Amino acid sequence: MSRVLYDLCGIDTALRFSPFCWRVRMALAHKGLDVETRPWRFTEKDALSFAEHDKVPVLVDGDTVVTESYDILCYLDRTYPEAPLVGDALAESRARFFKHYAERSLAPPIMAIIIMDLLNAIHPDDRAYFRETREKRFGRTLEEVHSPVRGLSQLDTALAPLRGRLEEAPFLDGDAPGAADYLVFGNFMWARCVSTADLVSNADPVHAWLERMLDLHDGLGRQATRITDIQDAYR
Amino acid sequence: MSRVLYDLCGIDTALRFSPFCWRVRMALAHKGLDVETRPWRFTEKDALSFAEHDKVPVLVDGDTVVTESYDILCYLDRTYPEAPLVGDALAESRARFFKHYAERSLAPPIMAIIIMDLLNAIHPDDRAYFRETREKRFGRTLEEVHSPVRGLSQLDTALAPLRGRLEEAPFLDGDAPGAADYLVFGNFMWARCVSTADLVSNADPVHAWLERMLDLHDGLGRQATRITDIQDAYR
Repeated sequence: MSRVLYDLCGIDTALRFSPFCWRVRMALAHKGLDVETRPWRFTEKDALSFAEHDKVPVLVDGDTVVTESYDILCYLDRTYPEAPLVGDALAESRARFFKHYAERSLAPPIMAIIIMDLLNAIHPDDRAYFRETREKRFGRTLEEVHSPVRGLSQLDTALAPLRGRLEEAPFLDGDAPGAADYLVFGNFMWARCVSTADLVSNADPVHAWLERMLDLHDGLGRQATRITDIQDAYR
Repeated sequence: MSRVLYDLCGIDTALRFSPFCWRVRMALAHKGLDVETRPWRFTEKDALSFAEHDKVPVLVDGDTVVTESYDILCYLDRTYPEAPLVGDALAESRARFFKHYAERSLAPPIMAIIIMDLLNAIHPDDRAYFRETREKRFGRTLEEVHSPVRGLSQLDTALAPLRGRLEEAPFLDGDAPGAADYLVFGNFMWARCVSTADLVSNADPVHAWLERMLDLHDGLGRQATRITDIQDAYR
């Protein structure tokens, strides 16, 4: 059966930096499922019209089309019950909190740190679209959002509960990684692929967790192409 | 079988404001278990020596003594499996994140808002102990910790993921409350009992959730004695 994931790419088709696509790539690897990742750019809306959707990730699993990263994780649990990601009803309810924590507590400060790196990593043909949609969303220019020192300080505060949890267990989901880990890890892959900024210090339990996450599934995250792997990426 | 909870009290034995004790009171009510709450003050260490512990909550359930609020919730699930609080292994792992979120993301800004009210609510005989232990813990005087405007701003930021979750479900644990709700709600009962500060606006989904939480279990939280119920509390 064919399995295809439409996956955001940047200046190079190998540069894959979407935090939402990274959730799905890690989740597919967690389930031991092969996938062909198909590079997609922000402005290639037509390529997704079959899914009646306008952004990635889009997973095509045989005859089934699934959109939205969180819904894809739930779909994977329903369809491939081995190695649960979100788990049963109560566990799934709590997994949703990690989604919101990743998107509302971690993403804004990380965005403030990496936004100009992110713009640089995006394909030139996509940059006007990115600027227009994000400036509308934020109500500010990208240059006004850019505030790395404040971002690092706010990220440090936002990481406090993650740190607490990782002082007592190797993964957010306990002895082994699960949906909670992947939901949060996507944000860090986003930053890692487009930027060289250090988001957490080496002494932070979050750092040790990130190293473990990068090693998972034959080093899927660690081997991902970064902006520094691309010749002339900084022009 | 007798069941006793040692429960922190303040200037009046009816004033019960410990966020950790509130977790346990809500959890016991969730299980439908009766309990005698026994008022205890910070400096009455001898009264807890039987438990080889120096702070509350301490639950005495027949012949069993359990300390630490989170451990008490786990104990209740093991001993009274109906109406799960923390749930199975994966759900329980995620419940721990709410414990850290409550203690590390919410408690510090709430402390900055209510600390002088809190001092006023504590029994006069306990105030020197409270000041000494907290100033040592914070590395600052209570007056320096007191920063209500900054606290409200930081609390607003910290509540973002809670707000996201409560926009999609009535409780953090979904259609019905569970450990995640009680772990976080304790902080709000702490503030409610000692202070009149408004922590969230009426329009906030967190506010609507608090109203639901106050109504649970025959209005256990709503009926709790507040500082404003005590004559001459502000002297």
